[in-house]
Amino acid sequence: MVINWAVVAVGVSILSYIIAAIFYYKVSKLPTGNEKIEKIGSYIRKGSFTFLKREYKILFCFALIVSAIIFMFFPTPIWLQDNVLENVQMVIAYISGSVLSGLAGYIGISIATIANVKSAIAAKMGLAKSFTAAFRGGAVMGMAVVGTTLIGAAMLYIFFGNSDIILAFSFGASSLALFAKAGGGIFTKTADISADLTGKVELGIPEDDPRNPAVIADNVGDNVGDVAGMGADLFDSNIAAIAAAIVIAIPLGMVELIFCFGSLGLLASMIGVLLSRVGKKEKPSTALNRGTYLTCFIFVVLTLAAVIYCGYPIQLWGAAVIGMIAGVVIGITSNYFTGEDKKPVEQVAKSCENGPAFTILSGISYGFLSTLPALAGIGIAAIASYFLCDGLGSGYAMMGISISAIGMLSIVGMIISNDAYGPIVDNARGIAEMGELGDEVLEITDQLDAAGNTTKAITKGFAIGAAGLTVIALLAAFREIVFQQTGVLIGFDMMSPLVFFGALVGATIPAVFSAMLMFGVNKNSQVMVKEIHRQFEEIPGLKEGTAMPEYEKCIDIATIGAIKQLVPAGIMAIVATLIVGFVGGVQAVGGFLAGNIISGLLLAMMMSNAGGLWDNAKKYIEAGHFGGKGSDAHKAAVIGDTVGDPFKDTAGPSINTQITVVSLVASLAATLFIQFSIF
Amino acid sequence: MVINWAVVAVGVSILSYIIAAIFYYKVSKLPTGNEKIEKIGSYIRKGSFTFLKREYKILFCFALIVSAIIFMFFPTPIWLQDNVLENVQMVIAYISGSVLSGLAGYIGISIATIANVKSAIAAKMGLAKSFTAAFRGGAVMGMAVVGTTLIGAAMLYIFFGNSDIILAFSFGASSLALFAKAGGGIFTKTADISADLTGKVELGIPEDDPRNPAVIADNVGDNVGDVAGMGADLFDSNIAAIAAAIVIAIPLGMVELIFCFGSLGLLASMIGVLLSRVGKKEKPSTALNRGTYLTCFIFVVLTLAAVIYCGYPIQLWGAAVIGMIAGVVIGITSNYFTGEDKKPVEQVAKSCENGPAFTILSGISYGFLSTLPALAGIGIAAIASYFLCDGLGSGYAMMGISISAIGMLSIVGMIISNDAYGPIVDNARGIAEMGELGDEVLEITDQLDAAGNTTKAITKGFAIGAAGLTVIALLAAFREIVFQQTGVLIGFDMMSPLVFFGALVGATIPAVFSAMLMFGVNKNSQVMVKEIHRQFEEIPGLKEGTAMPEYEKCIDIATIGAIKQLVPAGIMAIVATLIVGFVGGVQAVGGFLAGNIISGLLLAMMMSNAGGLWDNAKKYIEAGHFGGKGSDAHKAAVIGDTVGDPFKDTAGPSINTQITVVSLVASLAATLFIQFSIF
Repeated sequence: MVINWAVVAVGVSILSYIIAAIFYYKVSKLPTGNEKIEKIGSYIRKGSFTFLKREYKILFCFALIVSAIIFMFFPTPIWLQDNVLENVQMVIAYISGSVLSGLAGYIGISIATIANVKSAIAAKMGLAKSFTAAFRGGAVMGMAVVGTTLIGAAMLYIFFGNSDIILAFSFGASSLALFAKAGGGIFTKTADISADLTGKVELGIPEDDPRNPAVIADNVGDNVGDVAGMGADLFDSNIAAIAAAIVIAIPLGMVELIFCFGSLGLLASMIGVLLSRVGKKEKPSTALNRGTYLTCFIFVVLTLAAVIYCGYPIQLWGAAVIGMIAGVVIGITSNYFTGEDKKPVEQVAKSCENGPAFTILSGISYGFLSTLPALAGIGIAAIASYFLCDGLGSGYAMMGISISAIGMLSIVGMIISNDAYGPIVDNARGIAEMGELGDEVLEITDQLDAAGNTTKAITKGFAIGAAGLTVIALLAAFREIVFQQTGVLIGFDMMSPLVFFGALVGATIPAVFSAMLMFGVNKNSQVMVKEIHRQFEEIPGLKEGTAMPEYEKCIDIATIGAIKQLVPAGIMAIVATLIVGFVGGVQAVGGFLAGNIISGLLLAMMMSNAGGLWDNAKKYIEAGHFGGKGSDAHKAAVIGDTVGDPFKDTAGPSINTQITVVSLVASLAATLFIQFSIF
Repeated sequence: MVINWAVVAVGVSILSYIIAAIFYYKVSKLPTGNEKIEKIGSYIRKGSFTFLKREYKILFCFALIVSAIIFMFFPTPIWLQDNVLENVQMVIAYISGSVLSGLAGYIGISIATIANVKSAIAAKMGLAKSFTAAFRGGAVMGMAVVGTTLIGAAMLYIFFGNSDIILAFSFGASSLALFAKAGGGIFTKTADISADLTGKVELGIPEDDPRNPAVIADNVGDNVGDVAGMGADLFDSNIAAIAAAIVIAIPLGMVELIFCFGSLGLLASMIGVLLSRVGKKEKPSTALNRGTYLTCFIFVVLTLAAVIYCGYPIQLWGAAVIGMIAGVVIGITSNYFTGEDKKPVEQVAKSCENGPAFTILSGISYGFLSTLPALAGIGIAAIASYFLCDGLGSGYAMMGISISAIGMLSIVGMIISNDAYGPIVDNARGIAEMGELGDEVLEITDQLDAAGNTTKAITKGFAIGAAGLTVIALLAAFREIVFQQTGVLIGFDMMSPLVFFGALVGATIPAVFSAMLMFGVNKNSQVMVKEIHRQFEEIPGLKEGTAMPEYEKCIDIATIGAIKQLVPAGIMAIVATLIVGFVGGVQAVGGFLAGNIISGLLLAMMMSNAGGLWDNAKKYIEAGHFGGKGSDAHKAAVIGDTVGDPFKDTAGPSINTQITVVSLVASLAATLFIQFSIF
């Protein structure tokens, strides 16, 4: 029996929506807390939606402009053809991608700002209940995001069967993700740094103290940065991987396989999510990791069965497994470099005793070291899957790489669930503290929070690895499109000066992009710190806790600042691609993408691992090592953590999305580069 | 009349030695100072030579091992041939390169440790005299280094006429330079950081205070790190550029042109050096820059005349001029990002008011930004010279790139002179302070020192730019060698998974290399800081200035630490190249080199500019801005400067040499990769 996997994908996606809806309903029906807690929760919820609305307003304008450009030029300038239908289809696909990506973020925020309160209250009834509330909240996001990806790609494929359309869909999703990630990242770190600097460092009040005017903004930041942003990031990698694979698979007649693996991956994630619960006396991180490994196992078994049943080449299944293993291995090495019980964290914590300069130097050094296993891992996965599938015939080798990206992302439903769990329990901890739920509850939320941090490092490594393989596939997709247009199978030979020039320029873009985002955080935090100082000076009784701070002022500053800063960095990356393409042509763009990928992966890995390392070195000292809280070593560690914050939560993970967007822009504009470039 | 430019090169080199000898004699005959100053001078001199001797002992062992390996395997394994003469020749060339490179360092240290004292004493007679003493000291180094390069390459070419031999010579020079730069860099920053942390920060005593046990080690560090190290770095770029150009030029019959440009560049530098003096009421930096621009002008005129007279294609002259302009432009942009009167320094200084975390974040952000103009500049120079010469026939395009590297390095004699001037006046300032020569003298030495810092940023940008173009040429040389061996003109297509894998791994090597060096500095400084604390505790009267510290203990620590750390990082880079080559073959190595070059240039530029920026932001605050010395902003700036020290003086500039060495290793081992690789 021939299975129409694109239709199956639609079915599985609908199933994932049903699970998401059930979880949503169950979490929102959990008992409510006292008035104070509800009030705090509603502050966070209101702040998050305010930011989202403003951000989406800007992005709506951006999408309108881009839609107009797409209509005018893509895939062919309208004045060069009689039939504008294809251009209209591209616009529809682009808008669908944007809207669905935005919707995924909206759903995520919507459930996260309910689950945080519920999880805090459930902690009164023990760790297991609290864990379930938070994890199911995360799972709503996970299921909704992956279901949306899959249903979008499948429907477009069923209706149009055209790779350009899928690329436009992916570009819509990615460009929105780029801004969501950058904007959310700037927001969250502006609030986090300002809250820490004024609260912990200057005033010596604990984290999440309700007297701190930035504390709500900090919690809002967790949602808009980590839930919506990280969700958008993985949504984008996932859809880009599918798009690249479809472009490569169409000439081979292998598109069904992609939907097969995608559907079974989502199915595996569903089962994994449904089975995830924390046992008695079990650490929450054990439960999270068990869920991930279980999902991997189910995926391997299901896909093996499907491949045998449908008669697909077994090598392609091998490629998917290789990608999955590479993802897990990269996650594990990230965990080594950032884990609280590992040598790097201990060494960095130790170097804090010699002052902040050594904290910074040792953290950056370990960050540099951590790039080798990760990048070599991506490279090995690429080679292995390439040569494994090379024997299947022309074009299959590249298909192997793209399938290994799909394999790595197969368990993305589970990954996003784990990932969204983090900020939910982080928020729950804050709400428990502000709502004065007592020490027992705080202890439970602390445990849940610690598990979130550990998982975060692993999923981040995973996200970067997945982006790495995806963009290699996108590079191949770019070449495939040029081949379809010109009939010439070009290479990107580093000995060609155009390619080399492109590579040099492309390599600087992630650096410039990161710099722009970090400047944004730097600038906004300075404004917010001033505002916090003002409130403490002008509001009588604030320090004593008898008056309320003006939370919304801080949320406003973070929002306005993030909105202002998020657009230029993204535009810079897109414009640089177009300039290189229109000047140097497709050769230069190929080099540009290669340079961009290489330096992007390097910097993303370095920044996100160094950031995680500093964070945990601080926690390690706070746990009583090297003098503990309040010691000079601790002060040095706090400085390291502050440097690491925008590294790991603003710049580092946004680079992923930057790489993908640039690759998609290149693929979409390939025809124009061929026709209009100077060289 | 046909000019034999290789012979001319020998003649010009001898002339440069004569000038060096005259300057050496003149400087050493300048009046001596009082006993105290002579004693301080002899401490520095002794310390520098002690380090050099120990370093050379290690490097001698290294060279012996490498000689044995070369004899066994290069260019062909001895058991595969009857005639071992070629292998012996390779060993001779390798050893010559090493010995001459070592000799250049020796001469540099030898004059620098005389000129520092003379310059300090001459400051009593005014700025002009002091400037001349220091500058001529630097010029001895400049002339000796460039003369040695040219005479070595010319003699080997005259005797053997074989590109392999020149590559082995270059490899000898580069591998020694790698260790000299890394070892010197670790030494100097260990001493500098330890002296600053204990002296300026803990005890609040001024820089160069003789009570500080690390103060002599700090001055020794300037010599072994900046004089010997930077000299070795530019020596290495220069010889590598010549070697790469010769490999490419031999099939075209264009080798004479390389010696023509090399000779005239050295001649131009000689004239520039001879005409350099500081006018009345003139800033020393004006004199230094005037010398550089004058040298450029003379080079352009002389080479134009020679090209017309000898009938060489004018396009090749154009390529040389393009390279020279690119070098100057990169120098100017480096100056923008690090200059004390420019916006970035002011902004970073301002962000110090918000604490050290912002100092670090803003510095790194500007460092990231600074990569774009530099890398784009290198790329544009490559494209422009490629297409300019492409019309001359097959092979000429790559010749264009290599000539543009030669053009950029043409004025290297002047650059090294300027560069060695820096540490000499830095030392002179220290000697004047320790020898209590009075405030007037200190004011003069301060002025000379400030000019040294400004020039340093420019020459560093220049050195990185030159390395960039050189390694592109080396990549071409690698391909040329593979072509000669196999008859196949390979490309390094980024779409080949082997190339891509190589590029990913290659890109991480500069990061890992930097991390290893910074760990070294980190580790050693901790040991030295402990030793300084011990001396202050155990030596009665040291704090009061009635007893002498044990300077040699600190020199010992820096020496032993540097010796231990310098070898592993270099070996790592070389071994990684061999592993990639023997596993992935020439394709993977091509990718490896490309990735290495791209990320190497990016990181080198970022680190050296961020480091220079922090240094000058600190000076800007010390000049009275944002609270001046002792303010919180100043403390934050000192932390930035401490992070920046190993960035700009250990890791950043060593990456240059790492890139060159790796490229040369690849070229030398190309035959073996072809025969014995797995893929």
